[in-house]
Amino acid sequence: MITYSKNDWFPAIWHFHASPTAFSLFRRLFWVALYVTGVTFLELWVVDLRLKDTPTEFLSTMGILLSLLLLFRTNTAYDRFYEGRKAWGTLVNNSRNLAAYLNAVIPTERTEDRLFYTKMIANFAFSLENHLRNDIKSDGLEAAGIGELSELTHYDHVPNGVVAQLQVRTERLYREGLFTDAHLINLSTMLLVFLDVAGICERIKSTPIPFSYSFFIKVFILMYIFVMPFIIIDEYGYLTIPAVVAVSYILVGLELIGEEIQNPFGIERNNLPLNQIATNIRLNVHELMQFYIPHEEKQAAKSKFVIVT
Amino acid sequence: MITYSKNDWFPAIWHFHASPTAFSLFRRLFWVALYVTGVTFLELWVVDLRLKDTPTEFLSTMGILLSLLLLFRTNTAYDRFYEGRKAWGTLVNNSRNLAAYLNAVIPTERTEDRLFYTKMIANFAFSLENHLRNDIKSDGLEAAGIGELSELTHYDHVPNGVVAQLQVRTERLYREGLFTDAHLINLSTMLLVFLDVAGICERIKSTPIPFSYSFFIKVFILMYIFVMPFIIIDEYGYLTIPAVVAVSYILVGLELIGEEIQNPFGIERNNLPLNQIATNIRLNVHELMQFYIPHEEKQAAKSKFVIVT
Amino acid sequence: MITYSKNDWFPAIWHFHASPTAFSLFRRLFWVALYVTGVTFLELWVVDLRLKDTPTEFLSTMGILLSLLLLFRTNTAYDRFYEGRKAWGTLVNNSRNLAAYLNAVIPTERTEDRLFYTKMIANFAFSLENHLRNDIKSDGLEAAGIGELSELTHYDHVPNGVVAQLQVRTERLYREGLFTDAHLINLSTMLLVFLDVAGICERIKSTPIPFSYSFFIKVFILMYIFVMPFIIIDEYGYLTIPAVVAVSYILVGLELIGEEIQNPFGIERNNLPLNQIATNIRLNVHELMQFYIPHEEKQAAKSKFVIVT
Amino acid sequence: MITYSKNDWFPAIWHFHASPTAFSLFRRLFWVALYVTGVTFLELWVVDLRLKDTPTEFLSTMGILLSLLLLFRTNTAYDRFYEGRKAWGTLVNNSRNLAAYLNAVIPTERTEDRLFYTKMIANFAFSLENHLRNDIKSDGLEAAGIGELSELTHYDHVPNGVVAQLQVRTERLYREGLFTDAHLINLSTMLLVFLDVAGICERIKSTPIPFSYSFFIKVFILMYIFVMPFIIIDEYGYLTIPAVVAVSYILVGLELIGEEIQNPFGIERNNLPLNQIATNIRLNVHELMQFYIPHEEKQAAKSKFVIVT
Amino acid sequence: MITYSKNDWFPAIWHFHASPTAFSLFRRLFWVALYVTGVTFLELWVVDLRLKDTPTEFLSTMGILLSLLLLFRTNTAYDRFYEGRKAWGTLVNNSRNLAAYLNAVIPTERTEDRLFYTKMIANFAFSLENHLRNDIKSDGLEAAGIGELSELTHYDHVPNGVVAQLQVRTERLYREGLFTDAHLINLSTMLLVFLDVAGICERIKSTPIPFSYSFFIKVFILMYIFVMPFIIIDEYGYLTIPAVVAVSYILVGLELIGEEIQNPFGIERNNLPLNQIATNIRLNVHELMQFYIPHEEKQAAKSKFVIVT
Repeated sequence: MITYSKNDWFPAIWHFHASPTAFSLFRRLFWVALYVTGVTFLELWVVDLRLKDTPTEFLSTMGILLSLLLLFRTNTAYDRFYEGRKAWGTLVNNSRNLAAYLNAVIPTERTEDRLFYTKMIANFAFSLENHLRNDIKSDGLEAAGIGELSELTHYDHVPNGVVAQLQVRTERLYREGLFTDAHLINLSTMLLVFLDVAGICERIKSTPIPFSYSFFIKVFILMYIFVMPFIIIDEYGYLTIPAVVAVSYILVGLELIGEEIQNPFGIERNNLPLNQIATNIRLNVHELMQFYIPHEEKQAAKSKFVIVT
Repeated sequence: MITYSKNDWFPAIWHFHASPTAFSLFRRLFWVALYVTGVTFLELWVVDLRLKDTPTEFLSTMGILLSLLLLFRTNTAYDRFYEGRKAWGTLVNNSRNLAAYLNAVIPTERTEDRLFYTKMIANFAFSLENHLRNDIKSDGLEAAGIGELSELTHYDHVPNGVVAQLQVRTERLYREGLFTDAHLINLSTMLLVFLDVAGICERIKSTPIPFSYSFFIKVFILMYIFVMPFIIIDEYGYLTIPAVVAVSYILVGLELIGEEIQNPFGIERNNLPLNQIATNIRLNVHELMQFYIPHEEKQAAKSKFVIVT
Repeated sequence: MITYSKNDWFPAIWHFHASPTAFSLFRRLFWVALYVTGVTFLELWVVDLRLKDTPTEFLSTMGILLSLLLLFRTNTAYDRFYEGRKAWGTLVNNSRNLAAYLNAVIPTERTEDRLFYTKMIANFAFSLENHLRNDIKSDGLEAAGIGELSELTHYDHVPNGVVAQLQVRTERLYREGLFTDAHLINLSTMLLVFLDVAGICERIKSTPIPFSYSFFIKVFILMYIFVMPFIIIDEYGYLTIPAVVAVSYILVGLELIGEEIQNPFGIERNNLPLNQIATNIRLNVHELMQFYIPHEEKQAAKSKFVIVT
Repeated sequence: MITYSKNDWFPAIWHFHASPTAFSLFRRLFWVALYVTGVTFLELWVVDLRLKDTPTEFLSTMGILLSLLLLFRTNTAYDRFYEGRKAWGTLVNNSRNLAAYLNAVIPTERTEDRLFYTKMIANFAFSLENHLRNDIKSDGLEAAGIGELSELTHYDHVPNGVVAQLQVRTERLYREGLFTDAHLINLSTMLLVFLDVAGICERIKSTPIPFSYSFFIKVFILMYIFVMPFIIIDEYGYLTIPAVVAVSYILVGLELIGEEIQNPFGIERNNLPLNQIATNIRLNVHELMQFYIPHEEKQAAKSKFVIVT
Repeated sequence: MITYSKNDWFPAIWHFHASPTAFSLFRRLFWVALYVTGVTFLELWVVDLRLKDTPTEFLSTMGILLSLLLLFRTNTAYDRFYEGRKAWGTLVNNSRNLAAYLNAVIPTERTEDRLFYTKMIANFAFSLENHLRNDIKSDGLEAAGIGELSELTHYDHVPNGVVAQLQVRTERLYREGLFTDAHLINLSTMLLVFLDVAGICERIKSTPIPFSYSFFIKVFILMYIFVMPFIIIDEYGYLTIPAVVAVSYILVGLELIGEEIQNPFGIERNNLPLNQIATNIRLNVHELMQFYIPHEEKQAAKSKFVIVT
């Protein structure tokens, strides 16, 4: 994600236009420019197609429908982005609440159990990040006891594995009598949240906007840009070229941003800083469970950089 | 569902225009083309109806109202699609949470009980798919004990049957003392989710957008296309034909996609991949309950193909 | 509700235009036609009001504001329709979940208790339908024991009465020891849902869109239709008459559908099929509690007819 | 609130235009009329400002942005209205559920306890109404035991006081053994809802739409009305006066309704009938707890009148 | 936050234009004015660029897309504002409910425990305010026992620390037998809400609208203002200057308000009055737990001033 302030105006412009999405945009604008230049010279020097007398009202009505569809596209893409952010926010809240609760319930002398929960809660966030971003299963995971990390990576679905181990340990401590009935009921509410968050993220990742809409909007933009030079050339002359390129910049740009935003779990510049959030969860959970992390790691978690992953 | 990436551009276009919805669209466009060709030749060669002097502003205002109605249509259709997807996402989360919980609570030596829950959780997803898509009651279901599959298919409403059997078994184990009060309270929250999901899907399937709106939008589109050639013919001449066909492609196309999307449980190309999700649930639940499925089945669940059901 | 498929096109048109709302629409269109005919002949034959030189852009801007208000109207009306449908969907889910739970918890030999819950759960749906639609208190209700039906109809608010009796019976069985603490906690969640659904439906019924908005939109439509013929007559001539009537058809039609949809509990053609849903609940609950209903009644619950209430 | 039916058309118009909001609207329209008359005569008789040649397209684009802002205003105002209505609906549901539950749990011989809850549940609704509308603390409250009413009015925040007393009594009965653990857990869910509702209503009341937006929309409307006569006078002549007044009626009217609706707890004509709802809660709770209220009071609760508070 | 009434019209205008956002707006408008004056004189006196014959329809279509994007911006900014307000509203409700519950459960003779909870609940609100606004960790916090305030400020994340101490004390009283199982289960629901609220506020603060959209809208506005004078100069002459400045006032103003509103936790004029809400929580909790605060402090909490922080 690009963290920006109102003052970082120029680096921001630079970063925007240096992103892969921007290259993809420029490539398309290049073709549009070629096309519109061709049409313009052909019209003005070679043949004079009749269409150029057309008033622009017709284009305007279709332009409004297209604008509304782009708004729909933008809204759905943004909703996914925000739903993804909300899911990770819920993960943060739940991890903190669970840590604060367990800190109160597990006596301080049971260091092994305290450490297990501390590590595993943070592991969930990192395993979910790995699951959503890449398949290197053990990135950022920390062993929470003897051998348990390798047990985790045996799972096809590592976040499932983390929750399975949390449930097994919780049940064991309940059978031991450390957790009472009331504790178990309270813990259950919190332990269910982890896989809910994982499921929401997977759903956002695997279900883009229905193909037909995505396709339709692209075809509509293409048609609009194709027709446009013929209609405005009579009044704009050579200015048709910058005009069509400018309009294309806006229409194609909106479409491309929508496509980038709708899966917010990538590592591109508009995506969510999953790694930063996961590190944050680790720091918070350690503090709440009274395990101290050396100062260097805390620093790394501050958002010093413009682009965070 | 069509799983698409940014690169699969050409096969995507092909698949789009090979779908039943596309045929339905082409059939309508054919009639529009016939109509507008007739009007155009009649106007230009035979009679000269007065309407052709009409400015397009009037058409433009009605066009905006029509655009807003199509946006409303698109939004409601998409909301149903997404609500359906969310419901199945909840089913995935709940199945996993239930499996992770039961894995911790039921001792490993009680293989029969573990297997029962494993099979029944997956059965719910498949029975719901069957219930929403067709009436072949036992597709994908697996026996979870002696005779229990035939007991299930006795039910008129098989998903109800699955939940009934889950509740009966849970109560039996509670009476036996395997589940404590706290366990039962925790399990209850999860067992209620199954029928909530089923009910949401049935509601989406049985309640389309109110007939009046669906009808009204169709009439409005019809009126718009009917009037359009008379109004633009004076300025467009023979170009009226492609212009009207292009506008019809967009208006009718949006309407048809809305109709297809609003019931997302079919097996058309824009519908949800219920079978894939159900298979996924089966794999996850088996892994969490530590029953291993041979490798072939896992492969089949990966989304290798462009169109998944 | 009109259950429609894509193929039932012609009967659908017929049913749409045979509904009370349609008659109301036609009555208004008749007055509009009379008005616009008068204005047209007056303008073209008698006096020539200056207003006819007015460009249509002004009308167009106001037309856009009116379109946005109609979209707002349509959205709020549809939201109520859908909220009502969701509430009844929740009732279905809750009735099924409660039945599946009680079936597991109450031993099969306690037939009287099982029958009581079976009848009362279904009675709630029917009593809510009666409460929302008419005041014949006992339509569709079935006695759930000796004298209990007459006890119910003593209540001013019959759905309240059903829940009161469910709570009393539940408490009695808890005091008897049939329900444990865990059972009671689980049951409580489900027993609360009934009156929540009833309250949501009553709220939708008793709170229309604020009068000012409803009134304002009507005045706006009136003003628009009143001014329209003066502005377009110069360019449209006698075609002013069909043009104004067509625009009125769309504007007034949208308003009237909004008014019909916003209270979805009536028995008009766009309303919810409460009776069908309630019958469906009865069938499901009986099946889940293992009381069999003869085949005829099941048939009646299938949606054979185009219009279901 | 104005309760209206489709037939009460004329009294409705009257009531609308007799409301304080309408007077506020008329006052503003009077100034607009004065201004536009001045401009018109000045332009047509004295000086001829150049601006009158301006095409209306420019006005039209700004008109669309203004329309969208008014839609935003209308949506947010309506959302508050509806959120307030929902909160009171939740209060109704919760009061009924609590009464139905307590009726089952508290034995009939404990009349004092039953009466206490009956009175206090209804008192909450009335105290919340007083809290939201005026500061006469004891309007509609009924003593629920010896001295308890004066205890309530000692509280700065009377609704808080009602809940505090409900919680104290509930805890006392739990300590006495009348309520078991399961009862207490079930009751807790319901007792929390009261202050949630109170908090939601206070939030709606104390947080209007951010001042900048409210201000901005007003400035925009002012600018639009100020510029409008100069632009249309050339084409409209003396008709400029009714045209500008009509447009002002619509723009200013929408703004004023938005301002009135956004705090739905007043006693104006578009506000919620809090008193009617609270009376309704009292009647329902008494019926459910089997305390009978004489017939006269029930009648008063029916919505006989057009305007209910 | 600016608390405004309909009558405070003139001070409100003054306050609006004295805010930092307004200065930022004026600075930009100054540059726009300079630019448009330059263009106007250049066009009218020096060179006559061809573009001035361009009809405004083209500008109008792009204007609509821009309007829709500004609506999207306004909606998302407002949603964050309102979500933040809702989160703090939930904090108010939860603090009151917790206080009313603890007041009933903890016997009056345990003054130390009662005081601890009273102080800590209020401390949470103040620590969250500090956390969201500045890093002076102890503003408004009150010691809730010996040494506990310094313990709190040891935490990097003070709100986490407050909840950790609340959980520890609750667990201690549960182990002592003061709280039963049922009490602990009920309390747990309330204790989880604190960090949920904190997490929501942090999410809103740390996740602005994706950079691409924010950037895109700014570029679009810039392009629009850049092109505008060339297009309207032919018809507007010297009036181009006020026209472009007025349009810029509206477009840039909307953008700037959106930017200010989207992080509602600052201390600017449109931000939420966190300090007032926190003081309100302190007063309510003290009243509910029966600790009386001297009259002066209560007065300070009333919103006497126009701008509250």
